[in-house]
Amino acid sequence: MTQRVAIIGAGPCGLAQLNAFEQAREAGADVPELVCFEKQDDWGGLWNYSWRTGLDEHGEPVHGSMYRYLWSNGPKEALEFADYPFEEHFGGPIPSFPPREVLADYIFGRAEKRDVRRHIRFSTAVRWVERSADGKGFSITVEDLTTREKTTETFDHVIVAIGHFSVPNVPEFPGFDRFPGRILHSHDFRDAVEFENQRLLVVGSSYSAEDIALQCRKYGSGPVTISYRTAAMGFDWPEGMEEVPLLKGMDGKTAHFVDGSTREIDAIVLCTGYQHQFPFMADTLKLRTANRLYPADLYKGVFWLEDPDLMYLGMQDQYYTFTMFDTEAWVARDYVLGRLALPDRSERATDIALWQQREERLDGAFDDIDFQADHIADLASMTDYPAFDIDLTRDIFKAWEHHKDANILTYRDRAGFTSPCTGTASPAHHTDWWVALDDSMATYVGERAPASRTG
Amino acid sequence: MTQRVAIIGAGPCGLAQLNAFEQAREAGADVPELVCFEKQDDWGGLWNYSWRTGLDEHGEPVHGSMYRYLWSNGPKEALEFADYPFEEHFGGPIPSFPPREVLADYIFGRAEKRDVRRHIRFSTAVRWVERSADGKGFSITVEDLTTREKTTETFDHVIVAIGHFSVPNVPEFPGFDRFPGRILHSHDFRDAVEFENQRLLVVGSSYSAEDIALQCRKYGSGPVTISYRTAAMGFDWPEGMEEVPLLKGMDGKTAHFVDGSTREIDAIVLCTGYQHQFPFMADTLKLRTANRLYPADLYKGVFWLEDPDLMYLGMQDQYYTFTMFDTEAWVARDYVLGRLALPDRSERATDIALWQQREERLDGAFDDIDFQADHIADLASMTDYPAFDIDLTRDIFKAWEHHKDANILTYRDRAGFTSPCTGTASPAHHTDWWVALDDSMATYVGERAPASRTG
Repeated sequence: MTQRVAIIGAGPCGLAQLNAFEQAREAGADVPELVCFEKQDDWGGLWNYSWRTGLDEHGEPVHGSMYRYLWSNGPKEALEFADYPFEEHFGGPIPSFPPREVLADYIFGRAEKRDVRRHIRFSTAVRWVERSADGKGFSITVEDLTTREKTTETFDHVIVAIGHFSVPNVPEFPGFDRFPGRILHSHDFRDAVEFENQRLLVVGSSYSAEDIALQCRKYGSGPVTISYRTAAMGFDWPEGMEEVPLLKGMDGKTAHFVDGSTREIDAIVLCTGYQHQFPFMADTLKLRTANRLYPADLYKGVFWLEDPDLMYLGMQDQYYTFTMFDTEAWVARDYVLGRLALPDRSERATDIALWQQREERLDGAFDDIDFQADHIADLASMTDYPAFDIDLTRDIFKAWEHHKDANILTYRDRAGFTSPCTGTASPAHHTDWWVALDDSMATYVGERAPASRTG
Repeated sequence: MTQRVAIIGAGPCGLAQLNAFEQAREAGADVPELVCFEKQDDWGGLWNYSWRTGLDEHGEPVHGSMYRYLWSNGPKEALEFADYPFEEHFGGPIPSFPPREVLADYIFGRAEKRDVRRHIRFSTAVRWVERSADGKGFSITVEDLTTREKTTETFDHVIVAIGHFSVPNVPEFPGFDRFPGRILHSHDFRDAVEFENQRLLVVGSSYSAEDIALQCRKYGSGPVTISYRTAAMGFDWPEGMEEVPLLKGMDGKTAHFVDGSTREIDAIVLCTGYQHQFPFMADTLKLRTANRLYPADLYKGVFWLEDPDLMYLGMQDQYYTFTMFDTEAWVARDYVLGRLALPDRSERATDIALWQQREERLDGAFDDIDFQADHIADLASMTDYPAFDIDLTRDIFKAWEHHKDANILTYRDRAGFTSPCTGTASPAHHTDWWVALDDSMATYVGERAPASRTG
């Protein structure tokens, strides 16, 4: 009987997985039946931008945390698909920090090239995944959100690719229940102009806090106060932006911080991270992890320790993104195709433990980057993912960290990053990020915009 | 073996059900084991105000649609508990249109009086309800949101009391994906001051639209445009508020309406209603209904046609609220206690059909009010719910409709509504609603505020 593979989610990870299988099919492999379940009505995951927040048209939690005017916060050369370089998609080089629409178009372009859409069941939510009663394979119950019909099917392999930026971690501070203004988590942030002229409090000190705070100021917010728990980001913020210690609580519109200082605030954005949540996975199959570089129970960061027929993609805390997803997907594919033999459980457990021990000794961002690059190199060594210069990407990430420290407003204006796939250096963008209010693909790439998808 | 009754939800309906059982226990009845599952960490349902929107601290959809500065939009005399008059709770008469905190305190007061909290498992979400495998009773799987542990138990009766104002109905209009401002459903509306000085578009023509539009204007929003699909509400709106036909779409900040008119808009509030959703009910047990006065498949508006051991409370479109929930709960209780025999399925189906036929002939609000009063009187005739003057409540509702038509800004300032339970007339409030910005219980009821729950 034909093997059946379930892929849960058609975002960057799910599409990477479908692409990996299609690449093998092109090369002559006998590929099992692929069924990708996607609860949204189109592909892209987070990159499928929606104005919706909270619950969607079906009453389901909105998946996306994507907001307008998001530009890549890392050089695109560090996330380039080795089998589908940016130059192939855009017909020539483009600058290094593209806005959302441009990156989304790139992701979708590869998915279209290999016609993976035919494997995807859209508007279909996975409700329950458990071991089949006979102990072989998995039983998956899904709900068609349009017909509201539930069906159960069995699969030999399950690949969970739902991401981990969908379920917000939302702390409460004293006085929130009486704060006369808006309080939202970054998951529900959509458009910086909603905060025009408002005095903002941003709680958090990671990428979301940095980006949303800057973006609101860029699009005309009032002064922005950023509150950190442990350590300030410490960038040289522009006029009207500052970092202060942790929020103690709100008294009306007055924010009180643990250092005794106060600020008057009109709106609060909680950039306090996300939870790894898998409510549809049976307890014995459910990944339980914080956001870290090497989650427990996943051999090579992919294979569920107790049963490698269950795989998770992209569950790591991420410097690398698309490249890591790709190598994970390639390895998962090879295991499903029988090309890759895994060691026994005890060896797998030992391997995980060794990686985690190394993770615990890491000291700072440069160490983190090397660790994740080594993880990807380890994966790449197990499969035939096309060659790319991973050592170059380490350098790119480290240079990028320096650029950010040097100037948080201008690091996205840098050019000359060399593609690890094609060797081409990126051109400068025509407009400085801090003053570029139009983030459309047409404006960003000009005549390089793929005609079929613009407008 | 002791019978077991599951009550799903500890809002007004679930608390009414627990109270009904406790009233019978006080009177000497042998009451089965009661287990009330509540996913929030306190009781009150919608009346348990939370600043949270979207997903809550557990990653669960936020239940509440309650917002700050909500005042009752109908006279409290039309929703008075016959076994716990307002005068008992507040020690004397209070005005007729109390704000949220005052009404919530009244609901909680009765729940405390009969000590129903001991039956409630808080922070516990019901995940799945199905017939037991042996065909007797029901199997219910719940998740403790704190420990994330799932357990399954069996019950002889299930009473679904989750309300139907939690899952928003959120339509999309052209241009929403590029609208540079905030778009929210009334489910996520929390505080009118978030819209200070903003030009608002409110889509809808029912209670939420009326109340949120007025409230935003009251608390300092810019001009408010209300867009209706079928018919305008037609009130004599104050300066800066107007009704226009249906929205065609947004072009940037410009709203285009089907009559060709346009308005410049900063924020959009969709007051477009709610869905009756029961994702945790097995298909054969799941109520499927629009928001109407007499939903299909519920005998006497309560008993699941195919199996009366399953009951639903408060699923009706509502003029009457607490009074209707109470009579429904009393009848459900009597059925569980074996005091009330139901006719066979075909008679039950005929009865539902007759009520629905009458519903379809109703012509306007006065007819609706009489229909729902008759439904309540029908329920009351089946049980020993304490006597109250239901004909007086019909008159109260009809007078209220006239008052609203006469002046949408002042109808809440009316006094002299007679309690259908005690015969006392309500006093005037000390401040006109349109200028009363402080909605606290202390300000509203003054020395009548129950000391234990203020502050």
